[in-house]
Amino acid sequence: MKSRLVYKFIGKVLVGFSILFILPTIVALIKHENIIPFFIPQVISLLLGLLLSRIDTRNSSYYAKDGFYIVTFSWIIISLIGSLPFIINGDCGVVDAIFETVSGFTTTGATIFTDVENINKSILFWRSFSHFIGGMGVLAFVMTVIPLASKDKSMHLLKAEMPGVKVEKMVPKVKETLMYLYGIYIGLTLTEVILLFISGLNLFDSILLSFGTAGTGGFSVLNSSLASYSDFSKIIVAIFMFLFGVNFNIYFLILMRDIKDIFKSEELRVYITLYVIAVLFVILNTINIIGNIKETIIEAIFHVSSFMTSTGYSIGNVDIYPTSCKVMILFLMLISACSGSTCGGFKISRLIISFKDILRSLRRIVYPNRVENITFEGKKVSEDIVKSTNIFLLLYAVIIITMMFIIGLDGHSLETTLNAVFTTFANVGLCFGIDNFSTFSNVSKIVMSIGMLMGRLEVFPIITIISDFTRN
Amino acid sequence: MKSRLVYKFIGKVLVGFSILFILPTIVALIKHENIIPFFIPQVISLLLGLLLSRIDTRNSSYYAKDGFYIVTFSWIIISLIGSLPFIINGDCGVVDAIFETVSGFTTTGATIFTDVENINKSILFWRSFSHFIGGMGVLAFVMTVIPLASKDKSMHLLKAEMPGVKVEKMVPKVKETLMYLYGIYIGLTLTEVILLFISGLNLFDSILLSFGTAGTGGFSVLNSSLASYSDFSKIIVAIFMFLFGVNFNIYFLILMRDIKDIFKSEELRVYITLYVIAVLFVILNTINIIGNIKETIIEAIFHVSSFMTSTGYSIGNVDIYPTSCKVMILFLMLISACSGSTCGGFKISRLIISFKDILRSLRRIVYPNRVENITFEGKKVSEDIVKSTNIFLLLYAVIIITMMFIIGLDGHSLETTLNAVFTTFANVGLCFGIDNFSTFSNVSKIVMSIGMLMGRLEVFPIITIISDFTRN
Repeated sequence: MKSRLVYKFIGKVLVGFSILFILPTIVALIKHENIIPFFIPQVISLLLGLLLSRIDTRNSSYYAKDGFYIVTFSWIIISLIGSLPFIINGDCGVVDAIFETVSGFTTTGATIFTDVENINKSILFWRSFSHFIGGMGVLAFVMTVIPLASKDKSMHLLKAEMPGVKVEKMVPKVKETLMYLYGIYIGLTLTEVILLFISGLNLFDSILLSFGTAGTGGFSVLNSSLASYSDFSKIIVAIFMFLFGVNFNIYFLILMRDIKDIFKSEELRVYITLYVIAVLFVILNTINIIGNIKETIIEAIFHVSSFMTSTGYSIGNVDIYPTSCKVMILFLMLISACSGSTCGGFKISRLIISFKDILRSLRRIVYPNRVENITFEGKKVSEDIVKSTNIFLLLYAVIIITMMFIIGLDGHSLETTLNAVFTTFANVGLCFGIDNFSTFSNVSKIVMSIGMLMGRLEVFPIITIISDFTRN
Repeated sequence: MKSRLVYKFIGKVLVGFSILFILPTIVALIKHENIIPFFIPQVISLLLGLLLSRIDTRNSSYYAKDGFYIVTFSWIIISLIGSLPFIINGDCGVVDAIFETVSGFTTTGATIFTDVENINKSILFWRSFSHFIGGMGVLAFVMTVIPLASKDKSMHLLKAEMPGVKVEKMVPKVKETLMYLYGIYIGLTLTEVILLFISGLNLFDSILLSFGTAGTGGFSVLNSSLASYSDFSKIIVAIFMFLFGVNFNIYFLILMRDIKDIFKSEELRVYITLYVIAVLFVILNTINIIGNIKETIIEAIFHVSSFMTSTGYSIGNVDIYPTSCKVMILFLMLISACSGSTCGGFKISRLIISFKDILRSLRRIVYPNRVENITFEGKKVSEDIVKSTNIFLLLYAVIIITMMFIIGLDGHSLETTLNAVFTTFANVGLCFGIDNFSTFSNVSKIVMSIGMLMGRLEVFPIITIISDFTRN
C-alpha cells in the first residue's frame, strides 16, 4: 500500500536529522568531550537519507495513509540512529539506549540512567535535545499529517482528533502552518531559557530544562530532577509546563489578536478547571505531610503541571502522596492536557466527547424520543467521531491490560507495574515508586518502548500499518 | 414516574421475604441459639409487606421501567431488614451489618468478620442463605425483568443484555420461566450439597458452602475459607462454581434434550477457552512457588473458578501469585463469566460484542467501504446494542475511578484500593492483600455497598432511577 514517496520523504527527514547532530557536536567541542558518538550517526543518517531521497517517484501516487508510514517509520529510524551516541560512548547497552532514545523522541522522559550527573554534557544535551525534536515532530504530526490523512475517508477513525479552531483553516498551506507552529514553539522555548537563566540557572541547565518542558518530555540534568533549584526557577518551569499543555492553535489566535475566541475554547476551559481542582486537591491532601504551606503550594502546582502535561519533572517525593491523590493523578496522566499540544495521553478533547456521549446515552433512558447531537467547541460532532473516540478509549484499555500482563512477568508489584505502564504509555516518564527503569527486564523495556510509540502516535497509525501488513 | 404497582410488588416481595426467616429460625432452634434476631426482622418484613400489598392499584398503569424500581428498592429494603439479625445479635455495628448483608444479597461475599468460627450457627446460616436468595433474585432480574423492560423502547440501553437463546422465547410466561430457572438452580444446589456431604463435610457446612456456590457469593464457614477441606471437596466446589458461571439457558436446553445447540453457544465456547487458558497460565506461574504438582493444579482450577465466576472462595494464599497472574485475574474478575448466570461483572457476552466492535472499527481503516454487521450467537446484533455495550464499558471505568478515588481517602495502598474496588464492584469478594473489609472506614464501606449494588444490578437500573429523580 505504501508508495515510494514514503521512502523519499523519510530520506528527506533523515537528511534533516543528520544536520541536528551539529548541535551536540558543538557542545562536545566546548566541553572538550568526544565528538565521535555524534559523528558516526550523523554520517549514517546523511548517507541513508541521501540514498532514499534519490528514489524515483515520478509515477508514484500519494495515499493519505502514507503520512502514517512516514511518521511511524521516521520515529522508529530516528530512535534507532539516535540511540547510537549512548552506545558508542559506552553509557549503556543497546536495549537501554533504544529505550532511552524512544523515551526521548516520544517526549516521555522515562530514564534507565541512575546517575545522570556523571554522563558527558554533550550526551546529556543530545538526550534532552531529543525531547525538543520529538515535540516538533508531534506538532507536525497532529497539526498537519492527521488533518491531511483525515480528509481521506478511509481514515475516518482519525477524526477523533481535535475538532474546533485549526491553524490550517486559516493558513492554507502545510508549510506555512508548520512555520507558524514552530515559530510559537521555538519562541516559547527561548522565553523559558531566558527566564530560567535570569532565575539563576546556568545556560546549559536552562537550555536542557527548556527542551524537556517544550516537548513535555521530562529528562533532567540532575539526579534529583528539579528539587535543588530555587522556588523561582521551579515556578517558571511549572508555568511553562502548563503553557505547553495548551492547544497551539490558541497561541495562533493570540498572534492573530483574536483574543475573544480563546475563551470560547471548551477544551481550554476544561483544562484550566481540571488543573485548578487538581492543584487544590493535592494541596489539601499534602499540607499535613509536607508541613510548610509555601512548599506545599509550589509542589502541588509543579507536580500537577508535570503529570497533567505528561512532562514528568519532579521537585519532591511524590510517593508520599495519599492514595486518592495517586488515583487522581493516574487518571489525569492518562487523560493529559489539550489536543494540538506536545502532551501525550488521551487528550481532554476526547474526554469531553466521550463524557458527553455517556451523558447523552443516559438521558436517552429518560427522553427516549429526543434526538440529540453532541457538540464540541460550539460545533456538532459527527457520530463517526463520537464512535471512534469511544473505540479509541476501549483500545487504550486493551493496550494497558496487555502491557501490564507482559511487564507483570518481571515480578514487580502490581502497583509498580501499573505505574510503569501508565507512565510510559501516556508519555509521562515519572511515576510513583519508580525512580528509573533500569530494574526492568529487556523484554519489558522493549514492550514499554512500543507502548511509548503507540501512545505518542495516538495508537491508530501503528495499527493501520499492522492492518496493512496483514492485508498484503 | 413510578406507579403504585411498584409499592404493591415490593410488598409482595417483603411478604415472601418474611417467610424465608423460618429457615434460620429452625437452625437456631436446632443449635439452641437465640431466635429473636430472626423473629424481629420477620415481623417487620411481614407487616411492611402486608401494608404495601394493600395499596389500591386499580387505576394504576404499569411502566416497563417499574421493573427497575422493584428490583432496586427490593434489594435495598431486603438488605436493610436482612442486616437486623447481625445487629440484634450484637455481632457487629450498623454499617458493618449493612455492608455484610449487601455483600450477601449481591452475592459478593466480601466480609467484615475476622473470626467467623465464633459466630452463632444460625447467624452464619442466614449469612450464607442471603447468597442463595440473592442468586434467585439475580436470575429473576436478568432473565425476566430485563427482557421485559427491554421491550420498551425507552429501555434501549438494556438491550446490551445477552442476545442469543432465551428461555422466555420457549416458555412464554414469566412465571413458567422462573419455575424452570429456579428448578435448575435448586436442583444444582441440592446436587452439590449431596456430593459435598458424601465427600466428608458435615451437613451444615455442605449446605452453607452450596449456598455460597449457587449464588456465586463466597461467604465461608471457616476462617481459612475452604483450605482445610479434602481435595475431593475442593474439586466438587470448583466444578460447581464453574457450572454456576454458565448461562442458565444452556441447562434449559439440556433439559429440553437440545444438546447440539449447546455447542453453538459462542459465549460458552469463549468462557471455556478463557477458563482453560487461565488455569494453564496460573499452573505455569505458580508451580515453582507451590512446589507440589497436584496441589498446584487443584489450586489453579479452584481459584480460577472462584475469581472468574465472582464467587470468591479460596483454598490457599493468592497473594503469592506473580504480578502477571494478578493482572490476568483482575481482568477476568471484571469480565466474569456468562450472562444469564448468577455471576457479577461485565459478562463474556458483552466482552465479545465490544471486542468485535473494536476489530470492526480497525478493519474499516483497511476496507472503508465495506458495511459489516456484528454477529453474536449466530445472529446480527443491532447497532443500538453495540453502542450501549460500549457505553456500559465506559461507565464501568467511570464508576471504578470514582470508587477508587473515594476509597483511596482511607489511606490504604493504591494496590489494596484497586483490589477492594474491583472485588466489590464485580461482586467477587476476595482479593489480593485483603482478607476482610473491617479495616476500611464507614464511608468506604457505604461506597462499596453502593458499588456492590451497582455491579449486581448491572449499573443501568440505578442510573435510570437517579435520572428519573433528577427529572421530577
